[in-house]
Amino acid sequence: MSDAYNSLVALNQEITLIGTTASTLGWDQETYMPEGAIAHRSKQLAYLSGKAHELRTSDQYRSLLESCEDETHLNPTIAANIREWRHHFDRATKLPKELVERNSETTSLAKPAWAKARKDNNFAEFAPHLHKLLDLAREKAELWGYEDEKYDALLSGYERGAKTSDIAAIFDQFQPGITQLAKEAVEKCQANPARTIDGNFPVEQQQILNREVAESIGFDFNNGRIDTTTHPFCTTLGPQDVRLTTRYYPNDFTASLFGVMHETGHGLYEQGLPASEFGLPSGNSVSLGIHESQSLLWEAHVGRSRSFWNRWFPRAQELFDDLKDWSLEEFLYSINQAKYSFIRVDADEATYDLHILLRFNLERRLLNGDITVEEVPDAWNALFQEMFGLTPPSDTKGCLQDIHWSMGGLGYFPTYTMGNLNASQLFNAAIKDSSIKTAYEAADFKPLLDWMRREIHSKGSTLLPQELMKSASGETTNPEYHLAHLKKRFIDRA
Amino acid sequence: MSDAYNSLVALNQEITLIGTTASTLGWDQETYMPEGAIAHRSKQLAYLSGKAHELRTSDQYRSLLESCEDETHLNPTIAANIREWRHHFDRATKLPKELVERNSETTSLAKPAWAKARKDNNFAEFAPHLHKLLDLAREKAELWGYEDEKYDALLSGYERGAKTSDIAAIFDQFQPGITQLAKEAVEKCQANPARTIDGNFPVEQQQILNREVAESIGFDFNNGRIDTTTHPFCTTLGPQDVRLTTRYYPNDFTASLFGVMHETGHGLYEQGLPASEFGLPSGNSVSLGIHESQSLLWEAHVGRSRSFWNRWFPRAQELFDDLKDWSLEEFLYSINQAKYSFIRVDADEATYDLHILLRFNLERRLLNGDITVEEVPDAWNALFQEMFGLTPPSDTKGCLQDIHWSMGGLGYFPTYTMGNLNASQLFNAAIKDSSIKTAYEAADFKPLLDWMRREIHSKGSTLLPQELMKSASGETTNPEYHLAHLKKRFIDRA
Repeated sequence: MSDAYNSLVALNQEITLIGTTASTLGWDQETYMPEGAIAHRSKQLAYLSGKAHELRTSDQYRSLLESCEDETHLNPTIAANIREWRHHFDRATKLPKELVERNSETTSLAKPAWAKARKDNNFAEFAPHLHKLLDLAREKAELWGYEDEKYDALLSGYERGAKTSDIAAIFDQFQPGITQLAKEAVEKCQANPARTIDGNFPVEQQQILNREVAESIGFDFNNGRIDTTTHPFCTTLGPQDVRLTTRYYPNDFTASLFGVMHETGHGLYEQGLPASEFGLPSGNSVSLGIHESQSLLWEAHVGRSRSFWNRWFPRAQELFDDLKDWSLEEFLYSINQAKYSFIRVDADEATYDLHILLRFNLERRLLNGDITVEEVPDAWNALFQEMFGLTPPSDTKGCLQDIHWSMGGLGYFPTYTMGNLNASQLFNAAIKDSSIKTAYEAADFKPLLDWMRREIHSKGSTLLPQELMKSASGETTNPEYHLAHLKKRFIDRA
Repeated sequence: MSDAYNSLVALNQEITLIGTTASTLGWDQETYMPEGAIAHRSKQLAYLSGKAHELRTSDQYRSLLESCEDETHLNPTIAANIREWRHHFDRATKLPKELVERNSETTSLAKPAWAKARKDNNFAEFAPHLHKLLDLAREKAELWGYEDEKYDALLSGYERGAKTSDIAAIFDQFQPGITQLAKEAVEKCQANPARTIDGNFPVEQQQILNREVAESIGFDFNNGRIDTTTHPFCTTLGPQDVRLTTRYYPNDFTASLFGVMHETGHGLYEQGLPASEFGLPSGNSVSLGIHESQSLLWEAHVGRSRSFWNRWFPRAQELFDDLKDWSLEEFLYSINQAKYSFIRVDADEATYDLHILLRFNLERRLLNGDITVEEVPDAWNALFQEMFGLTPPSDTKGCLQDIHWSMGGLGYFPTYTMGNLNASQLFNAAIKDSSIKTAYEAADFKPLLDWMRREIHSKGSTLLPQELMKSASGETTNPEYHLAHLKKRFIDRA
């Protein structure tokens, strides 16, 4: 390895020190920071992100990168690091400072405007902001460059290497099946109503269960912790420091438990990345669609499964008096219900992806100019009627429900469904190994984790997401596995 | 104001952004950080302190400082800021990098060696480290410069503007009185044993009381919080972000309460500094001896007083069943006991300062070469016998008990007693105002806080500690007020 490569490693590690410092401040802001401290905290974060940006876009970075770009033959890890550094350097340097600042100003105004518009059920309040956000998204796309359509450039910020047409092809293959399956699942549940979990589930007891579960599926509390926030998240503050958060509803323990299992899935991925490569692409997670596959694997394929509850239902009954008169069957049926909802974040496994397909369709057309900002509410409602057979009663429960656009996050949504599809496909690939399957059925999830460690976590970003899917499961993302999983769970109840 | 002055303000604010970021990471390390995260956290902190040091000692800093040093006539705040910047710049730049690194290496080895020596009761294990620490202290003193003796240069790092001979004069005046008073207080308590607080005091209830008390004496929880750590502290993470910590003993609620009142005293000082001057000397606390006066004021003069408990004893009885069969008199007598102890941190108000006088005497002689490192245990024990009439049963309970020397903290100890003396003197000055006294007696401490806000907190570092004492109380530190306070509390029981 050349001096230039080693210097670039050091420079990236320095950027990571700044980044993880900012993440620590961010974690504190969400968990424990007193309210009055926000002004100074914002200054600290702006300072750190400015410093990191300076280093990341510096002439020194450019010249080191140019000096080592002929070393990609040395070994695949070095090649991958150089490839990723180039990608991120280009994206970071292609936007002029003026645009970065305008972007930051636009989103900081759009966020509260969106919150107010949603509260007021008044799309017109948000529309002028969405115009600006859309213009910015198009400008960024032009500067970043794209092959087929502007959406490519945005998508690639969340799902490395993905093209809109590839996602569209996958979603097109997926849509008829999921539409039909969701409909059947909803109808079956309607016909046979489940008992509702609604009792007294003390938060302290929930915390005991959550911790036991997280620990038992492999989360290392010596290198991580769980705290309480309004919006659950997982953040990495260092190679041995992964923090999860959840929220508690005292009348239903499953919300915090599935939340913790979801975030634990993210955390297991982070804890499974090669610590010695921390701060380098080879030590980083590769994309949101892969990250979400790990969270959903543990939340849905483990957490909502019969084998998991065979083991954990008795323990939950020990901890919660209000679960004592439930049967395991009643409980399993209750936590796997399908029901159409207007709100994406309230949706169940069977109907969730419809919400994403709608958004992908809509924001792609919006970006391409096939619909205008003003047409968004009608287009949303028409699509919703078409896909769910229902019309949202308000924009608050329709096109104003998500925060993403107000943060400039056009192109983010498809990664959720990619996560669902990848989770089912990876789970299916793993349990082809009969020893993993047998252990899984006996609620021993260690072999499943070991498979993910080997096939996904340990790879960092050395492979692009679809290369990784192919190397781990033998094929690129294929929606059939997720359809099969949902059919088994919601139709066959197997 | 010149451009140079404004640039220096901006540079110091930048250094403060880095410093408060490091403090946030330090707070997290003590409160919530998972154990495994320490290696990365150390790298982050070393990086930040390196960056701050670079700025603080840069040629840019020097030239800006030189350019505005003729502006000290502009106004007293500007003059004070420039004076303090010069002082700190000189101290920071007078030590060569080699020495700073050797210092850091020496203390990082000395700390675990001290902990082991204390555990093993084996001074010989620590002696080679103390040799090196002493050599370093002497080297630093030579580089920093001093008027009379090397101790001056070290002391001034903790107590700005103080000279060893001034402290010695104050302590010489104090020593006969405190020695006699402690002896009498101990004897009186021995003759009339107090009931011991030892019951069931649930931590959750302690937290309720601590928060109510801290809030009622003026701590602003919108700009601060209380957490739990092994070693209590107060740290400032921003102008609106002051964090306290305490520890809990389930069998005695007074330990955490007095701990919280002590740290709240520090916190009130920090919250009372001019926020608009944050990051500048005019917005910073001035010295440890003043800081400690504020913590002790609230812990001792308020927290252990009859007027405080007139109001709070009934509330404590509401919260703790095991306090219900106590009378207020029993309780007040119990929390104000005098007893000789070998360990400084276990000492009560009446005997605490003897521990400090001993250390000041000893470390001054050590630094001047009047005793050798090898003579420390004997010298300690001889002094202890002379001052307390007792001989420590071991070095663990003698010269190995404190962490300070292992951290290179020679010169730190006298600030504790300066804090005690200043607290009594400032309290006495405040209650000369009869409305403050009347309110105080009715357990309304707001006027007392307002006085401290006006006379101490709002001044930042614009006055040197002894100037501040004079401006607030009419004279420089005078031990008679503390003696009078202790006499009233432990002898007269008034």
